[in-house]
Amino acid sequence: MMVNYEIPALDAAAMERTRAWLNGLVKPVGSLGRLEEIAIRLAGITGQVHSTPGRNRVVVFAADNGVHAQDITPVPQAVTAIQTANMTRGVCGINVLSRHAGCELVVVDVGVATDSPIPGTVDRRVRRGTADIARGPAMTREEAMRAMETGTRMAHEAADEGVRLLGAGEMGICNTTTSSAMLAAFTGLPVPQITGRGAGIDSEGLRRKIAVIEEALRVNRPDRSDPLDVLAKVGGLDIAAMAGLYLGAAERRIPVVVDGFISAIAALTAVRVDERARDYLFASHSSMEPGYMPTICELQLAPSLTLDMRLGEGTGCPLMFFIIEAAMRLCNDMATFEQGAIDNSGFVDIREDGV
Amino acid sequence: MMVNYEIPALDAAAMERTRAWLNGLVKPVGSLGRLEEIAIRLAGITGQVHSTPGRNRVVVFAADNGVHAQDITPVPQAVTAIQTANMTRGVCGINVLSRHAGCELVVVDVGVATDSPIPGTVDRRVRRGTADIARGPAMTREEAMRAMETGTRMAHEAADEGVRLLGAGEMGICNTTTSSAMLAAFTGLPVPQITGRGAGIDSEGLRRKIAVIEEALRVNRPDRSDPLDVLAKVGGLDIAAMAGLYLGAAERRIPVVVDGFISAIAALTAVRVDERARDYLFASHSSMEPGYMPTICELQLAPSLTLDMRLGEGTGCPLMFFIIEAAMRLCNDMATFEQGAIDNSGFVDIREDGV
Repeated sequence: MMVNYEIPALDAAAMERTRAWLNGLVKPVGSLGRLEEIAIRLAGITGQVHSTPGRNRVVVFAADNGVHAQDITPVPQAVTAIQTANMTRGVCGINVLSRHAGCELVVVDVGVATDSPIPGTVDRRVRRGTADIARGPAMTREEAMRAMETGTRMAHEAADEGVRLLGAGEMGICNTTTSSAMLAAFTGLPVPQITGRGAGIDSEGLRRKIAVIEEALRVNRPDRSDPLDVLAKVGGLDIAAMAGLYLGAAERRIPVVVDGFISAIAALTAVRVDERARDYLFASHSSMEPGYMPTICELQLAPSLTLDMRLGEGTGCPLMFFIIEAAMRLCNDMATFEQGAIDNSGFVDIREDGV
Repeated sequence: MMVNYEIPALDAAAMERTRAWLNGLVKPVGSLGRLEEIAIRLAGITGQVHSTPGRNRVVVFAADNGVHAQDITPVPQAVTAIQTANMTRGVCGINVLSRHAGCELVVVDVGVATDSPIPGTVDRRVRRGTADIARGPAMTREEAMRAMETGTRMAHEAADEGVRLLGAGEMGICNTTTSSAMLAAFTGLPVPQITGRGAGIDSEGLRRKIAVIEEALRVNRPDRSDPLDVLAKVGGLDIAAMAGLYLGAAERRIPVVVDGFISAIAALTAVRVDERARDYLFASHSSMEPGYMPTICELQLAPSLTLDMRLGEGTGCPLMFFIIEAAMRLCNDMATFEQGAIDNSGFVDIREDGV
């Protein structure tokens, strides 16, 4: 049983046209750096030199993790449900930043461990939280696929509703534990090196977290060449849904922003399912979690924001939407050298004439 | 002859109240990272826990540099005047980004080498471009002070008009040459290490630029303990005005954003004039110019954006205004733990419990 996605290649001709267009604007060649690279990749994604800002959306997936039973964190599992409810009331960090950036927020219950779905969320519950990865698989392969499909469906719906930029976020106590377990499974990196303090566990909690992850890998023996096996055995429903959203966005040619560590692990899962998904991903901020950097490097992405954040919820996405839209506007609204009465023939592209 | 500024100290009590307030919001303690640090410093600057987004402004100072006579760059000196005129027409990078971020832009002619002021700019011409630093001082000490006072006056006017966040930008061919010369004068760092390609000179141009800067330092022997001496001998009118703006903003308790390399040199000048100015400065993006990092480290600031930009014009400022306003809104609009029905007593502040 596998999942298949239809992901188009980037439009190389549109990218080349955009590169030429940017080189003709009233500025030194390449001087807008990554903003130019973003504009070029947007062109590859959309097939158009010029994109205009429009509807943007962050989709937050909430789910619980059975590994909470291992007493890694002092935070009660009920906080997942409470914070998810807080998001539907508009009072969390992601709500404030979404309003600031003028983007939409959709909260999806993909498996919170409560009797009934959290009111105000989109109900896509696959199960009431996962099982404890220290004792066996988090979920069945079929459940992991269903959670992924949930994310994919959310991306397709966004596309149908005309959303231009997508981002994914998560809410789920213990999801840095599952993320570090998945990263270790995918890469073989030593668990202590890629495991952090999440919401703020103490040094004793960190030692326990590392031991639990090592136990989860020993018990489950995930097959690193099979992303669904890694996801089902030591992952989570939130990560599965985010991975599905990234893949669904790529299918529908929508640029999609990665938030912090957990989102990056979901992005890595998506890329392991289908390498072509990478072309549609944009990193946002550099998370403080120690697993973030190895993951984003594995993805060959680079974050544009350094804010030492470690909140999750998708909080990097609205900030990055603003940067991506800045790239759109620069590409659309700056004068050309001809319009600006400047001859740029004297400039060299310093990227091509290294010291 | 010296300049004196009246710069208030940060309000430590307001900062402490803000720190406590942020620790009570529905998120792990400290998990918004630098956004929390920004909110805390804003409180120190304004004396209030809560700031609200309002009018923001970038002031661009245009001026010419006599060192253009040394044939470092293939770009004609007239490009300063042309690009400055383009800015008044709204078609440059800084115009697009200012509209994107919803901030104001004021363009000041502080010394473009034209017969008359550039139409559409604020006319504050101190002289028609500076003299060639490879042959003598760029300007007199009195001219440097007048250019500084121009910037200070622009900051005071902004304060009187209710501007909440200020930023400075520049337009002036060869101003990375003057900036590298000033950095070498202030720090003693080797010129080749802190000299870059600016708008895009080739390797031969770079060798020439380094030789010209070394010659300028030899000819002028700036006194590193006297910032006005460094400014007048190997600096520029744009840098002087920006330094004055930073100091004027600090006098009036206005947070002020530093753009790239040239702005950072102006900020270093301001801090050398009055150490207290540092408290009001916010770095924006990490410029690609090799002199940027040593300068921003010397300032004990850290940029939040990594965009590989090297355009100048103040382009980092509108992007950073958006980040600073995000910090304001998070501090104002998130629920407290009590409102959010969460008990945070189990969290530790990971910044205070290192592994």
